[in-house]
Amino acid sequence: MRLLNESNIEDIALGAAVLGTGGGGDPYIGKLMARQAIREYGPVELYTLDELDDDDLIVPTAMMGAPTVMVEKMPNGDDVLNAFKAVGKFIGKPIRATMSIEAGGLNSVVPIYLAARLRLPMVDCDGMGRAFPELQMVTHTLFGINATPMAMSDERGNTVLMETINNKWTETFARSVTINMGAMSMIALYAATVAQLKQCAVAGTLTKAEEIGRTIRNARINEADPVNTVREAVGGFLIFKGKIGDVQRRTEGGFAKGDAFIDGIDEHAGHQLQLSFQNEHLAARIDGEFIVTVPDLIALLDVDTGEPITTEAMRYGYRVAVIAIPCADKWRTPEGIALVGPRYFGYDVDYVPVEERYS
Amino acid sequence: MRLLNESNIEDIALGAAVLGTGGGGDPYIGKLMARQAIREYGPVELYTLDELDDDDLIVPTAMMGAPTVMVEKMPNGDDVLNAFKAVGKFIGKPIRATMSIEAGGLNSVVPIYLAARLRLPMVDCDGMGRAFPELQMVTHTLFGINATPMAMSDERGNTVLMETINNKWTETFARSVTINMGAMSMIALYAATVAQLKQCAVAGTLTKAEEIGRTIRNARINEADPVNTVREAVGGFLIFKGKIGDVQRRTEGGFAKGDAFIDGIDEHAGHQLQLSFQNEHLAARIDGEFIVTVPDLIALLDVDTGEPITTEAMRYGYRVAVIAIPCADKWRTPEGIALVGPRYFGYDVDYVPVEERYS
Repeated sequence: MRLLNESNIEDIALGAAVLGTGGGGDPYIGKLMARQAIREYGPVELYTLDELDDDDLIVPTAMMGAPTVMVEKMPNGDDVLNAFKAVGKFIGKPIRATMSIEAGGLNSVVPIYLAARLRLPMVDCDGMGRAFPELQMVTHTLFGINATPMAMSDERGNTVLMETINNKWTETFARSVTINMGAMSMIALYAATVAQLKQCAVAGTLTKAEEIGRTIRNARINEADPVNTVREAVGGFLIFKGKIGDVQRRTEGGFAKGDAFIDGIDEHAGHQLQLSFQNEHLAARIDGEFIVTVPDLIALLDVDTGEPITTEAMRYGYRVAVIAIPCADKWRTPEGIALVGPRYFGYDVDYVPVEERYS
Repeated sequence: MRLLNESNIEDIALGAAVLGTGGGGDPYIGKLMARQAIREYGPVELYTLDELDDDDLIVPTAMMGAPTVMVEKMPNGDDVLNAFKAVGKFIGKPIRATMSIEAGGLNSVVPIYLAARLRLPMVDCDGMGRAFPELQMVTHTLFGINATPMAMSDERGNTVLMETINNKWTETFARSVTINMGAMSMIALYAATVAQLKQCAVAGTLTKAEEIGRTIRNARINEADPVNTVREAVGGFLIFKGKIGDVQRRTEGGFAKGDAFIDGIDEHAGHQLQLSFQNEHLAARIDGEFIVTVPDLIALLDVDTGEPITTEAMRYGYRVAVIAIPCADKWRTPEGIALVGPRYFGYDVDYVPVEERYS
């Protein structure tokens, strides 16, 4: 067990935004909320899975919706509490801790906020090792763990609780209700025991995010090439450098969808990278050819600072580096590829692990 | 207390379809379900509000959705049980009885089906004295009673439970989820005590429906003019006779919306009535002038048999009589008109009680 203080938040949010592959929410809002809660209620106990009892019940908490909206519409904090408590009341057993369901600026720190406010521990793991846009896209699903009972709450005080026959139905209902709630909701779901999480979760994601964040912070001070430093920290590959040209966005079905077109610079001059996203970056094509796809991670970094750029922050003229990072092993099974691979998102291409292309 | 047997079902469903003003679901399906349940589990005890204790808790049950869909997609019975039980579990107190939330072919008999299967009593009242298309449109809302906790279930086994800050939000969330469930869901909501129902409900609706149904049945045998017999039984006004011409339909936002154009016959020859509906009939215009609007009832009857015709059953060539019926007094307040009057549905006209136009 170690304690998460205000000083940890900055690095966690920064590093998680890299793993968030453009999604998972704007880290700025999440940082404010979590730091404020720690200041008010004290530091949060962070446990590894091995430090808890196998029977302990863990309920993840998160934000659901289009991150584009969240820049303007801030959660009020009571919403995530309401969702968490609704699930707890429904289950009727004590909940030992919360956790992140995904890595991502906001969604790594929402559970920290909740943990601080409720003086509840956190577990150092998540259900993706990255961020994905749809609810069923967690390693829990691969191991037969139900998303429900799931609760979702808005900042007005509305709460919706559901029990569904599979995790795709959870996504369907929750997406509609999220749209009704103003394209954003706070959620609690995927209750699981520590024993189950030892099997299904991606362990150590929070600590990994923090290390990445620390590396970026240090690179700002020490390094000539911050992008390369981050690339090494995440074990990734530099696949492109360029300047953002056109960004086409649409909010569709409650998602922030679109494509960014990046014109190559330096050794990539004369080439163009097309980055397709649905809340998160899904696929990168160079000159029309798929180079990286889900479930591998695609991070967009500011060339000068190494800081990650979220999908909603992409703007014309930004100079960016595109980094590809191998995904967690749990995704690299036929079931994993079926759940979150390129064909699920409509790309007619087989998944090729990024390191096969770049090693 | 009296017992509802199989023999009561036919009259109740028939009469409720008149009060359902074109909506409330196709009675055919509801009759089958309720008769089958009574055959299997025995008759249902029907109480008046005065026969129950003021503290007794009552939870209405119903179908939600576009009746157009229901002709093809039949509820399986377990769905309404699941919804009812989810609300009961959430409240955590014994529920004394169920009731209809509205008059209408299916929605008068769904609670009978549930009551039979659970050997639970029913109360002889409803929340409208007719049918309306949206959840918040019940007299309960006028008296500050919450629609939530509300549960909704589908035939697959999915259940969604919600707690909202007002009944309009209930409608918003539930409509989206109903669409996701296939444009139809089974629901339990508006839990209230008998003391509250004595204040807010429309009493005696089921018995009234049964009497109307019996009248229609007898008219088939005895009467030269079945339409007139029904008109007298409901205390209504004959406003038009004609032949259905064009029927324009669309399923929009989970509702069956549209207009039917009826060309006058007999004393109405040369005139046209436009009947606008959203699940239920909302307004009738003769030659472009509003003649009857919500909250007063508009019933479409087969000229030859006096039987009500639902919005989804309207077809070119049917010879129909249009009957207007004064609504329950509870709707005729400023609050009632604001909730269910013509302007709420987008008609730029003031509500005029039908008997002021026709007496």
